[in-house]
Amino acid sequence: MRILVTGATGLIGQHVLPALISGGHEVHAVHVEDAPPTIDGVVWHRADLLADPKALVAEAKCEVLLHLAWFTAHGAFWRSLENLRWVSGSLDLLREFRAAGGKRIVISGSCAEYDWSKSLPLHETRSQCVPSTLYGASKDSLRRIVEAFAKETGASWAWGRIFFLYGPGEDGRRFVPFVARGLARGENPRCTHGRQVRDFMHVRDVAAAFAALAASDVEGPVNIASGQGVTLASIAHALERIAGGSGRAELGAIEAPADDPASIVADVGRLRDEVGFRPSVSLEDGLADAYRWNRTQL
Amino acid sequence: MRILVTGATGLIGQHVLPALISGGHEVHAVHVEDAPPTIDGVVWHRADLLADPKALVAEAKCEVLLHLAWFTAHGAFWRSLENLRWVSGSLDLLREFRAAGGKRIVISGSCAEYDWSKSLPLHETRSQCVPSTLYGASKDSLRRIVEAFAKETGASWAWGRIFFLYGPGEDGRRFVPFVARGLARGENPRCTHGRQVRDFMHVRDVAAAFAALAASDVEGPVNIASGQGVTLASIAHALERIAGGSGRAELGAIEAPADDPASIVADVGRLRDEVGFRPSVSLEDGLADAYRWNRTQL
Repeated sequence: MRILVTGATGLIGQHVLPALISGGHEVHAVHVEDAPPTIDGVVWHRADLLADPKALVAEAKCEVLLHLAWFTAHGAFWRSLENLRWVSGSLDLLREFRAAGGKRIVISGSCAEYDWSKSLPLHETRSQCVPSTLYGASKDSLRRIVEAFAKETGASWAWGRIFFLYGPGEDGRRFVPFVARGLARGENPRCTHGRQVRDFMHVRDVAAAFAALAASDVEGPVNIASGQGVTLASIAHALERIAGGSGRAELGAIEAPADDPASIVADVGRLRDEVGFRPSVSLEDGLADAYRWNRTQL
Repeated sequence: MRILVTGATGLIGQHVLPALISGGHEVHAVHVEDAPPTIDGVVWHRADLLADPKALVAEAKCEVLLHLAWFTAHGAFWRSLENLRWVSGSLDLLREFRAAGGKRIVISGSCAEYDWSKSLPLHETRSQCVPSTLYGASKDSLRRIVEAFAKETGASWAWGRIFFLYGPGEDGRRFVPFVARGLARGENPRCTHGRQVRDFMHVRDVAAAFAALAASDVEGPVNIASGQGVTLASIAHALERIAGGSGRAELGAIEAPADDPASIVADVGRLRDEVGFRPSVSLEDGLADAYRWNRTQL
């Protein structure tokens, strides 16, 4: 299939491209500035998505749109008004994509769409979407429109809800890099209590899951996650073992936010049984990989 | 207050302007093409909302935005992809309005946001929003973003959900004009069974309610409706009496859509008790007014 990938130079996108190429697809990817990375077989299109989606889709002429681009500046993305621009821009993009004959639209959503006050494994349709942030509300609302749009136009659509990814390329202020770099420096990184349960997936698996979802005909929201809840403390301890030094994450050294959810874990039945995808990177191997990369970033 | 009104030349907008003027407000109104109507005290701005909201808000410098503009072509609006452009455009507009120092945002929503399979009076927060159309999904999604946006930026916001309005200026293919014009021509207009219960409000009351909502500090969704459910048959019979001829609406002559909701009636507690608004046009007077206008349109 001819697949157009936005956000192709981002954390997930750069792993999606080789996954799609090795799946035998014709991959068209968008870059904005600078020279794009060289990946055998990828056709690059230089385009400002928010300014001129029409020219892009006309040039790329793809059947499938895998839309991963969004405003993702660490921390800021939760509350930024840029979220509104990305809702607008995404609507324009999918309208133009469909008008140009595109058949299937796959977009990255987020576990932030769900009601985090519920602790059960979060299910795509049985769990309620009650986002508590502007980012979550923007993704949730965009998905609602995409669903109605797809129904109206007969387009095929899917929506991959990302949970907690980690791996090379991650912002240094996020949990895994923060602990990994602290330990690599021989420090004792200061953490919250660490009892929060989260669903982590290595970025290569997240990307492979999106590649599989894009190439499938599965419709609607699909959690992109491992289905395994682990505590932040256990992640920190795994990194301590991998680092092999005397450094220890100092759990309880800082206060957790008052509204920090106890548990955010996905039901992954749809991803496993309908998309047919299973993660291939174990948490232990994935964290070792992340540790190695973070050590190079000191 | 300085209030900027979009959709000012539309069915509701043209009645909103005098209501705001008589409330002592400084009214700025947007028109797109042609010369705007002359209404004492209104400052007109010629602008293409979807193309350049920034220039408009910079020029108008208002505290309150009353955003009534949308794609409303009769029948087509339910399913049109124009709904996506209006979500995008509305997001751009409110971002620019807030960036220019605007304080309060009031937008027209719709009873189409609600789950119509439920027959109880529809309540702003107790009733679920499960829209069944692209139009409904677009309004519902925009509202969700506006709510999160307002929370994030500290803006004041309200969302007026319109039910079934009627009155002069209405499209001739809608129920009241269709029956009124048929009767005025001495025909027996062919209708469905007529047992559908709907919540009708005269357009002047709808406009006055929006003017009151805009000038209030009430937050969140507010039903703009009468709270009185009437059957389409009783509307038709009232029009027969008003027409005073021998014409009769031929109830049951055409098939109602299979999914035609039994009842769509608003709970109007918020409008009455919080906004302090009560309709002033009785159904009988309102229909007589509509009949007179429709007779001039034959």
